[in-house]
Amino acid sequence: MAGNNIDIPGIAVVGAGYWGTNLVRNFAATPKASLRWVVDVDADRADRLASGYAGTSSAASYAEVLADPAVDGVALATPAATHAELGLAALDAGKHVLIEKPLAANLDDGRALVETADAAGKVLMTDHTFCYTSAARYIRELFKSGQIGDFHYMDSVRISLGLVQPDVDVFWDLAPHDLSILSFVLPDGLRPITVSARGADPLGIGKPSLGNISIKYPNGAIANIHVNWLSPVKVRTTIVGGSKKMLVWDDLKPSQRLSIFDTGVQLQEDAKERHQRLVSYRVGDMVAPALEEREALGRMVDEFSGAINEGRQALTSGRDGLQVLTLLDATQRSLDAGGVSVGVEE
Amino acid sequence: MAGNNIDIPGIAVVGAGYWGTNLVRNFAATPKASLRWVVDVDADRADRLASGYAGTSSAASYAEVLADPAVDGVALATPAATHAELGLAALDAGKHVLIEKPLAANLDDGRALVETADAAGKVLMTDHTFCYTSAARYIRELFKSGQIGDFHYMDSVRISLGLVQPDVDVFWDLAPHDLSILSFVLPDGLRPITVSARGADPLGIGKPSLGNISIKYPNGAIANIHVNWLSPVKVRTTIVGGSKKMLVWDDLKPSQRLSIFDTGVQLQEDAKERHQRLVSYRVGDMVAPALEEREALGRMVDEFSGAINEGRQALTSGRDGLQVLTLLDATQRSLDAGGVSVGVEE
Amino acid sequence: MAGNNIDIPGIAVVGAGYWGTNLVRNFAATPKASLRWVVDVDADRADRLASGYAGTSSAASYAEVLADPAVDGVALATPAATHAELGLAALDAGKHVLIEKPLAANLDDGRALVETADAAGKVLMTDHTFCYTSAARYIRELFKSGQIGDFHYMDSVRISLGLVQPDVDVFWDLAPHDLSILSFVLPDGLRPITVSARGADPLGIGKPSLGNISIKYPNGAIANIHVNWLSPVKVRTTIVGGSKKMLVWDDLKPSQRLSIFDTGVQLQEDAKERHQRLVSYRVGDMVAPALEEREALGRMVDEFSGAINEGRQALTSGRDGLQVLTLLDATQRSLDAGGVSVGVEE
Amino acid sequence: MAGNNIDIPGIAVVGAGYWGTNLVRNFAATPKASLRWVVDVDADRADRLASGYAGTSSAASYAEVLADPAVDGVALATPAATHAELGLAALDAGKHVLIEKPLAANLDDGRALVETADAAGKVLMTDHTFCYTSAARYIRELFKSGQIGDFHYMDSVRISLGLVQPDVDVFWDLAPHDLSILSFVLPDGLRPITVSARGADPLGIGKPSLGNISIKYPNGAIANIHVNWLSPVKVRTTIVGGSKKMLVWDDLKPSQRLSIFDTGVQLQEDAKERHQRLVSYRVGDMVAPALEEREALGRMVDEFSGAINEGRQALTSGRDGLQVLTLLDATQRSLDAGGVSVGVEE
Repeated sequence: MAGNNIDIPGIAVVGAGYWGTNLVRNFAATPKASLRWVVDVDADRADRLASGYAGTSSAASYAEVLADPAVDGVALATPAATHAELGLAALDAGKHVLIEKPLAANLDDGRALVETADAAGKVLMTDHTFCYTSAARYIRELFKSGQIGDFHYMDSVRISLGLVQPDVDVFWDLAPHDLSILSFVLPDGLRPITVSARGADPLGIGKPSLGNISIKYPNGAIANIHVNWLSPVKVRTTIVGGSKKMLVWDDLKPSQRLSIFDTGVQLQEDAKERHQRLVSYRVGDMVAPALEEREALGRMVDEFSGAINEGRQALTSGRDGLQVLTLLDATQRSLDAGGVSVGVEE
Repeated sequence: MAGNNIDIPGIAVVGAGYWGTNLVRNFAATPKASLRWVVDVDADRADRLASGYAGTSSAASYAEVLADPAVDGVALATPAATHAELGLAALDAGKHVLIEKPLAANLDDGRALVETADAAGKVLMTDHTFCYTSAARYIRELFKSGQIGDFHYMDSVRISLGLVQPDVDVFWDLAPHDLSILSFVLPDGLRPITVSARGADPLGIGKPSLGNISIKYPNGAIANIHVNWLSPVKVRTTIVGGSKKMLVWDDLKPSQRLSIFDTGVQLQEDAKERHQRLVSYRVGDMVAPALEEREALGRMVDEFSGAINEGRQALTSGRDGLQVLTLLDATQRSLDAGGVSVGVEE
Repeated sequence: MAGNNIDIPGIAVVGAGYWGTNLVRNFAATPKASLRWVVDVDADRADRLASGYAGTSSAASYAEVLADPAVDGVALATPAATHAELGLAALDAGKHVLIEKPLAANLDDGRALVETADAAGKVLMTDHTFCYTSAARYIRELFKSGQIGDFHYMDSVRISLGLVQPDVDVFWDLAPHDLSILSFVLPDGLRPITVSARGADPLGIGKPSLGNISIKYPNGAIANIHVNWLSPVKVRTTIVGGSKKMLVWDDLKPSQRLSIFDTGVQLQEDAKERHQRLVSYRVGDMVAPALEEREALGRMVDEFSGAINEGRQALTSGRDGLQVLTLLDATQRSLDAGGVSVGVEE
Repeated sequence: MAGNNIDIPGIAVVGAGYWGTNLVRNFAATPKASLRWVVDVDADRADRLASGYAGTSSAASYAEVLADPAVDGVALATPAATHAELGLAALDAGKHVLIEKPLAANLDDGRALVETADAAGKVLMTDHTFCYTSAARYIRELFKSGQIGDFHYMDSVRISLGLVQPDVDVFWDLAPHDLSILSFVLPDGLRPITVSARGADPLGIGKPSLGNISIKYPNGAIANIHVNWLSPVKVRTTIVGGSKKMLVWDDLKPSQRLSIFDTGVQLQEDAKERHQRLVSYRVGDMVAPALEEREALGRMVDEFSGAINEGRQALTSGRDGLQVLTLLDATQRSLDAGGVSVGVEE
């Protein structure tokens, strides 16, 4: 039975909205998985989406899908508030689970998912899509190989086009991308210690629609994440500073997403060099490595298959999702306390 | 005597470093002023700079220059810590005074300068150069004419090339630009109420080298200012959101410094429009007005002459410089208190 | 029978390579067509491509597909040398035909296709994909509505990434895009009169791998098309000059593909204005209209369905494809004659 | 006497228009020259320009200036038609001569200047300013050191802002920049063999206002130069292809003027690599070297002083100016002959 075929896991995608459609397209296209079901409470929507793919059925009943032995893994692309219930049900039914970010709507739910998956010996993976971009993978390697040197700072700006989400605030909507990238690229031992955050609600919609988060590290480093729902232009730019190299990742510049600068900081007085920096637009030689243009989501779905087949943790595991929740939780606590720094509860 | 010629004021520039050199070049080039003196404690440096200009002398003695009746105005391009002493001396000598930002090294010094100038009936002008760019002037008019609508937010990023200043921290070095722009472009009645700030010192140099400031307004609006000394690339980008229009000012893109978007925010659910925004890079028609390419500093020095001749406040007055000091002071108090929001003391 | 359903034509795509794969994806996705067959001489390749789509079969036999009454239209994505034979066979079998650019490998074949389709009363459409971009449609409207004024020039640069095609030269590979755009956007009455071309073969591969074409119009206007296979970067930029407005179309800049300048030419002497132009990066206000981000190929396949259903010429008809062949033929004659201007044989 | 001081030559600048003003500013600023005179037939204009500089006089009489023994070198920034007469007079007066491009208005005049300077043993330098940019110097070194490999092509686009020059056509106005760069960066032995050109006059002003030149080399390489006066945007982009590396020089992108690609051309069939190139925006790692931001004109005026002092040919000599004239002459002959290729008369 296909469901027991360890090479090509059978998959059910739950949620046929914007992100579910992307997941379906990628699970259908990869030879490493077999897309069995598209599930949605709106049966027509599920049907329309499934009908384009040979061998894929639609369902409005989640229970029916969980009962199908041909289903090895369940991918959730539903609102965050439903992740815990749907994810725990899938784990109880013996399925591996992939969950769209954020892992859950709160820390307790996230912990329950991680503990249940551990106990069941099943894969619990968080869909931190940006960690599967060629750029994020490259930056991770730069840190691992020591080429960046000590981590000094990350400045990330992620702003989108005047699109207010109905169910979450701007931090829960956009910051998980940056928080997951941070934990993915930084050396394993480097853990955040404090978080402070500020938000604003200029439209009066009852929740922040723009704001920023500052995260401090034991070595004096800082990560600043700026998010904004109300922009006329999309921006996805991250600058990383290290003691040996700095880099700029502009994810909206496909001809040069990653620029790595062989440059340091000017501490000493040297009038000529200072003047050159004042009148220049940048310093140091720059290398823009050739990065494979491949959809990150394609790599992500293959990693889910790989983790299932090899019985291992996924590259972006439930635990990584939990780490993001921990930082979102600290963000909320700082906001509630008027922006003061709060400790990160691990 | 030329110094009494109300049309072409005689000028002394004090400080022959990077900025003083720029001031000298502009005062020498404009027909609206007569550059008399270049002053520097390093007599050779003053001499080298003055020697290129016909009719300009050099001096190491500030007193000698203040005693010259041909000098109507004194322009200070010296370290901030010297502004109060040098500025007050000039006012006492009956001169008009132009001071490089920041107006002074602290609030008390700033207040003394403003009060003394008021009492003496002399022009006290702050060199907030960016307020004289074509872009800043255009944005100010957009607000005044109501085209932007209500102010929602300003996100400003100003980062420079790994250049650590010896005498000030990154907030005092870079943030005055954005703080002065804010107060220049926003409607007069809109005054900040609270400030919170976070900084980091990843190099261990004893003061912040990157950080951000969040400023809140009575109407729920927010201004975020991000400054960074340690970057491999120069960035000078400001995004302004209003209820009617939004705009992007990229000061390093001379072919299109100002982009004005005819776009609003999407509050209602509309699946097609939401999807279009998710897959698009921007929304709404955009207009990039033709802006005159003229050096802002040229306009700034002419404004000094104009204010002297017309016996009026300069467009960027001492009081505007004091407003910037007030916000820098609040920034420092927030940093000292761990990032909590503090009130703006006016 | 589905093939007789005038609303949803049944489609066979012939050729399962790079472009055929794109066609298949779009015909499968649109509700306005029903993808029946994928055909390829490599049966495995056809099968792999078809297998992902519900209701789509694969075939290695073209005859079998032409015999299927459920097939209303045939889309050819095969080498240009095969277009005439495959297209004529489809017309003989009573099918409508869509052909990837160029319409045919030579003028005579192109004429045979057009005449046969006319006689048969079938749709013959050329897949000039770029004419279905939002930008090309917008430019066409600007000309139609008189906003651009008289046509003065078009400068088009289309260079690609060191990719030498095995069966055609750089002119036949890349120039059809620009030639088809030209004929699509310009007013109907404006027809080219002469063509001159120059090519180079620096690699010694026996055919031009870069070169340019200049096309002259009766009103003194000129269109320059520069094509290059050997570039390290992809460029797709077109500048159009008219008596009232000029525009820049950069198809690789999704945030601002189309920029329309409200600017004229400076004929008179005016020292200040001349100086401003010398030191500026552009002149005149600019408008970048919001363009719908939709895949041009999706619009193109829908146009095929629309032309079939409405029994009309497609927006990019066989005759438009023939016009492109006429200009490619003139290009070749000019190259053969050492670059001299040759007349366009209509 | 200063004029005999071999270290600091005395200079007279002739012509106080746009370019003369730039020359004056640079000769005044450099410690390697002493600006003595500004000459212009419009005495007021000369006076206004000279008055800003200490030690510089103005004159309307060229003879008076040539009679001044303190003048070692004369820099001509006058219309091309006057270069021969003014330059020969200066050489006759025993002065070294620097001439704004183009060297002369025709080949014969250019030859006369070169021969006269040779006979007199004086420096004759052409102001090919772009050869003194950091980018052009870097490219020249890349060729010299063999890093680019064999020269395959140069594509240059130089378009300006709707500014029609009264005395010359677009080829004589803009193409000398690219022609001089070509001869500056290419290996010495590589000489053009044929030229073909096409122009257009859509405004009906009696001379071409846009057009292109194609230059062929013995090794099969080609240089294409596209010039245009009628554009809404300024473009100065040059792409160079070689057998080992390719590069893009965008002179209007100060943060990254020069991008060097470690990339070759794809001749063999490799489906995966071909697909990657079709969907990518570029291939190969890229290096953007740090270039010193220094005004090219500053380097150019220092080279004039250096050549005078060291009694040597300037880096951009009269002979280099003559080479540009030779190519402009061939351009004109090709235009006159309807665009056919013509031989380059050396």
